[in-house]
Amino acid sequence: MTDAPMTAQAASTATAGDILSRQLTAQAGAFLRALPLAVGEVGARPGSAAVVPAAGTADLLRAVRRIGGLLHTFGAVFEQTWAQESRTELRWLLNLLALEPGYVRRSARLLGAVDSLSGSDPEGTGMLAGHAGAPKARALLDRQLTLARTRAHSTVLQELRSARLHALADRMTLLVGEAPLLETAGGRASAVLLPQAAAAFTALSACAQQLPLQRAATPYGGDGLRRLGAAPSVRGAADADAALAADDAPWSRLRILVKRARYALEVCGRPSSELDELDVVLGRHQEAADAAVTAATAARTPRITPATAYVLGVVHADQRLEVEAARYAVGRRWPDLPPGLDGWLEIPPAEGWGHSPAPRTA
Amino acid sequence: MTDAPMTAQAASTATAGDILSRQLTAQAGAFLRALPLAVGEVGARPGSAAVVPAAGTADLLRAVRRIGGLLHTFGAVFEQTWAQESRTELRWLLNLLALEPGYVRRSARLLGAVDSLSGSDPEGTGMLAGHAGAPKARALLDRQLTLARTRAHSTVLQELRSARLHALADRMTLLVGEAPLLETAGGRASAVLLPQAAAAFTALSACAQQLPLQRAATPYGGDGLRRLGAAPSVRGAADADAALAADDAPWSRLRILVKRARYALEVCGRPSSELDELDVVLGRHQEAADAAVTAATAARTPRITPATAYVLGVVHADQRLEVEAARYAVGRRWPDLPPGLDGWLEIPPAEGWGHSPAPRTA
Repeated sequence: MTDAPMTAQAASTATAGDILSRQLTAQAGAFLRALPLAVGEVGARPGSAAVVPAAGTADLLRAVRRIGGLLHTFGAVFEQTWAQESRTELRWLLNLLALEPGYVRRSARLLGAVDSLSGSDPEGTGMLAGHAGAPKARALLDRQLTLARTRAHSTVLQELRSARLHALADRMTLLVGEAPLLETAGGRASAVLLPQAAAAFTALSACAQQLPLQRAATPYGGDGLRRLGAAPSVRGAADADAALAADDAPWSRLRILVKRARYALEVCGRPSSELDELDVVLGRHQEAADAAVTAATAARTPRITPATAYVLGVVHADQRLEVEAARYAVGRRWPDLPPGLDGWLEIPPAEGWGHSPAPRTA
Repeated sequence: MTDAPMTAQAASTATAGDILSRQLTAQAGAFLRALPLAVGEVGARPGSAAVVPAAGTADLLRAVRRIGGLLHTFGAVFEQTWAQESRTELRWLLNLLALEPGYVRRSARLLGAVDSLSGSDPEGTGMLAGHAGAPKARALLDRQLTLARTRAHSTVLQELRSARLHALADRMTLLVGEAPLLETAGGRASAVLLPQAAAAFTALSACAQQLPLQRAATPYGGDGLRRLGAAPSVRGAADADAALAADDAPWSRLRILVKRARYALEVCGRPSSELDELDVVLGRHQEAADAAVTAATAARTPRITPATAYVLGVVHADQRLEVEAARYAVGRRWPDLPPGLDGWLEIPPAEGWGHSPAPRTA
């Protein structure tokens, strides 16, 4: 692991600045090591290669997410303009790097769904087994996603040579060992960082309370297909895309907040496997929701055959079912989740910091 | 209630023949009272009226099912040829009477699904909200089901005036008070009827053991859409209709066996609310599976638009999801079901019969 885990001794006397600097140094170092690898990977592969993200890109994404999360959650101890600008640039790189692997995963998901639904394997025959529209729908999805991916690849290739990326790399180089901290960072870690980490958990809980988690925990409630909770602004608007987007948005928000809470716990040396798992489930939710949109969009392609459209309708519903299944998994997990930092805040701060578990790679 | 429940006193000394005669007299009486009402109801309504089955038809169906079940389960004590012929004729009437109400329910289910999936109600926006294909798909389903229903209505009207029905009515008239029992029916109820009722439960358990109940009890396992357990004969055949039919068949069989077990328990004066509920769930399974077939068939209508086909694909998947949900409900209920007659057979027979609960209308 490239993070700098706190030992009990170091942690108990560390200032907030010590802890954050150590984390940022480690993650910025990871960023700088992974960047040339990632650039090489993107440049080396043609627009249609199958296996991404490669190791360099994955490591880079990992570091970008953690630095961004840290700057958000513990933003109060950093120089404001610098932190804000850094987050903007990191988000730009995150979106850029995630684009192409996202299309690859979506393609694998949707083509896999068509294959599974139209398969006639004795171990898992699908409801569309041998349907004439299945190969056509598969080819259509493949064509559209390959095109989107090729475009994304060109964009990434171009941006990876941009001055903007070089500026961000310089920013990360400066961050190694020298984060622009405010004076408040000199306070004890427990006194300064815990309230900010707690705020991340409060935001997470508040978001979760707005979600129909109890309903989602009841299987086959129809949440993914029939009972979308339309946001007020969408009410009356007879537009499925808007309704679906409004329905999925708070779950996407939950995913972001889970990631922030995860990274905050990592900074505090207390990673949570429950939050890691929840993040995975919410990632599945996001990908199924995105794939459903792609299927619905493909079905609007002009001049497709009714058989193709029919198969895309089944695939769309199938992906919404995956959305529902992911919400069910979240609804089931939620009550058992650790109550954030509640119990932890009761431990005397110095000892609290010392309870750092063994370092782990997440 | 028109059945003749056994009192503790009567039951403890009754012969098998006494009990069966009493049941058959009651049910045949119900049949004869309901028949003219049902004939009147069918004749009175036009082919497109919405509310069926009416009370007379429902009562007639109820009596037909119970007499048929009784003649099957306790068939060993009846004159064989007579019992076999009676069952054939009762099954004919059952299929005939169930036809039209079946189409009405299927229409309500499928049009309801389209409305729900395409609705933009704030309390339950559907994934097809405002989709242009929804009204077309609805009209297509409505037209095809109305046509099927009108044809069924004509058939029923014609058959209800047939000599075949009169012969069956005569058969039921003779049954009142005078069932053609074999000599073995003179034995004690417990000694004669219990083994036959137990055989009904053995058949039910054997059927259930062949089903993937444990897998079905895990929600969102994809049993309805992706992981159809194809029967050996269907393996390799790339035909979704055959695969779906083969997948649904053992569950339909379970439904029949649950009904037989229910009626056997009723004869023994021990109705089971668990079996009643299971019967309801399996009825939902059957109707969703049938509705899915109708949606798939409608999607093969020539010259429909891609938008219509797309909506029918979503509706098809939605109904397969209902199939999966029903299997989940069965899988969850199964382990808690009463173990048939196991515990009961250990009670001294005379007392066993006496444990008849209060009469109930099911």
